[in-house]
Order: sequence, then C-alpha cells, then structure tokens
Amino acid sequence: MACSLARTWGIIGEPWTPLILRDLALGLRRFDDIRADLGIARNILADRLQTLAQAGVVERREYESANRPRLEYVLSDSGKELVPIIMAITQWGDRWTTDGAEPPVVFHHQRCGGQSTARIVCDRCGEDLRAEDLQLLAGPGSKTGPGTFLADLLPRAVE
Amino acid sequence: MACSLARTWGIIGEPWTPLILRDLALGLRRFDDIRADLGIARNILADRLQTLAQAGVVERREYESANRPRLEYVLSDSGKELVPIIMAITQWGDRWTTDGAEPPVVFHHQRCGGQSTARIVCDRCGEDLRAEDLQLLAGPGSKTGPGTFLADLLPRAVE
Repeated sequence: MACSLARTWGIIGEPWTPLILRDLALGLRRFDDIRADLGIARNILADRLQTLAQAGVVERREYESANRPRLEYVLSDSGKELVPIIMAITQWGDRWTTDGAEPPVVFHHQRCGGQSTARIVCDRCGEDLRAEDLQLLAGPGSKTGPGTFLADLLPRAVE
Repeated sequence: MACSLARTWGIIGEPWTPLILRDLALGLRRFDDIRADLGIARNILADRLQTLAQAGVVERREYESANRPRLEYVLSDSGKELVPIIMAITQWGDRWTTDGAEPPVVFHHQRCGGQSTARIVCDRCGEDLRAEDLQLLAGPGSKTGPGTFLADLLPRAVE
C-alpha cells in the first residue's frame, strides 16, 4: 500500500508494541526485564521484537553474561524518533481517557529542566497544527489502490 | 492499566483505525464512502467505528437520505486532536519506511500556506523533543501492576 501511515502501523500498530518501545526508551534492554515489566508471554514479546528488529526500529546487540553470549535490545535512530510520538499519544490519553485522574507518568525535559508536554507544530511557521488547518494533498509518490483510493480525489501538491 | 499509552492504544491501536481516522480527517462521513476507499469488510469497519464512537473520538450524527434516517460519522474534539499525531506518524513513515521513494501524501498548512512537516516540541522551551533529552517520571496517578511494574522504579515527579 502506497501509504506511510499504513506501513508505519504495520510496524508499531500491534498490541504491546508501544509499551515495548516505552520500556526500551526507559532504558530496559534485556528480554527478561521487559517481559517482567509487561507481564506478557515470551512468544508474544519475541514476535514483537522480531518485527521491530526487521523494520530497523530496534537493534539487537550481543553481550556476554556468565560467559554466555546473550542479546540485548536498544532503540535505533528511527526508534528514537518514535519516542516523542509515543509521548504525544500518551499525553492525548492523559487528556481524554483518564476521566480526570492524574497522569500516571510525566515527562521531564532535561534540556530545559521542566515537566514537558509535547506540542505538534508546523516546521514552517511554528504554529500548533490543528485538524481544521490541515489539507491533505496527493504527493509525488501517491498511487491509487486499496486503502488509497482517495489519492485520485485529492488535489495534487504543486511541485 | 494505569497507563495512558495502553488506554490510547486500546482505542487507536487496532488495524485500519488510523486509516479510518485519516479518511474522517479528509472529510469522508458516510460508511459506504469509507468502506469503498479502504476496501475493507463491512463488519470490520462497523466494529472499528463502534470502538471510536464509544471512546468519544467519533460522533455519530443522523441525516436524512431519500426520506430515510442514516448515520454519518465526524471527528469529535478529541478525534481532531489525533490528526496532528497521525500526521507525525505518517511523516515518520515517509522518512523511514519508503526506501527513498517520494511521499504519497503531503500536508498543506492553510494558516501559513505551505507544505508542512510536523515537529514535536516542548511546550515550555519550544525545542524539538528528542529521546535522549527525555526522562520518564512516575506521575501523581501512577500505580504498579501488569504493564506498569516499572512505575515503582521510576523517580517520582516533584509536585
């Protein structure tokens, strides 16, 4: 499908995957530590880590423990770029799914030293991006097909 | 689970849901139009819209067609707030999943009149949020349990 949203969802859209990425962002690296934190089955965690490694989001590294080679998992550059997105999703949940309860987790921004909320802004004008102000245009790589039949109906971006 | 990420994923994490939200953001409102665009089974689309409506992300409205009442679907305020997040996810996919191909869809920001890329910045200092600069802290609503065993290990936010 010529759709970057669908392709990305194929990588991060499976249940548990965002929580695995969160654990990796927190600095957990070992299979058993992640499994213990999430309380999920070994085969599910192995399957999700496999998907993430194949997509290049997670890197597997060998280390030695008690003279035996073991694997640990760390976020790649593309995986690190998902962390602010996961933060924005988490804070959307804080606003809309907690029935007014306090947030379970807060994000400290070490560069400014404060508790941070993710804002999604336009890279050109710096203003907050809002649904009302956004128009989707067919890009240079658009194709028509299942999931993207709309592409033909969209105005085309001027190149 | 006392985790806003897990709760949000329970709403938007199912396959097809981001593409349904994208179609609603594009202005499609009718069941048959969304179904035709995505090429998915009626029961799957009905199920996903039901989840979104129960979570308050989508509002069902009645309209009349050929003297019969029909339902149409529009994004609620919380649903509109997901649109910039979906844009950020899509553009992550443009950067990391297309093997250098051109983006299928581009976003026009009507406020500044240009082609926009989503930046995720800190609401306090305005700088780009990067994984390396973020530290997760247990918030006032944190609880320990499956999926959040880590909460006990996190430093607590100063209130």
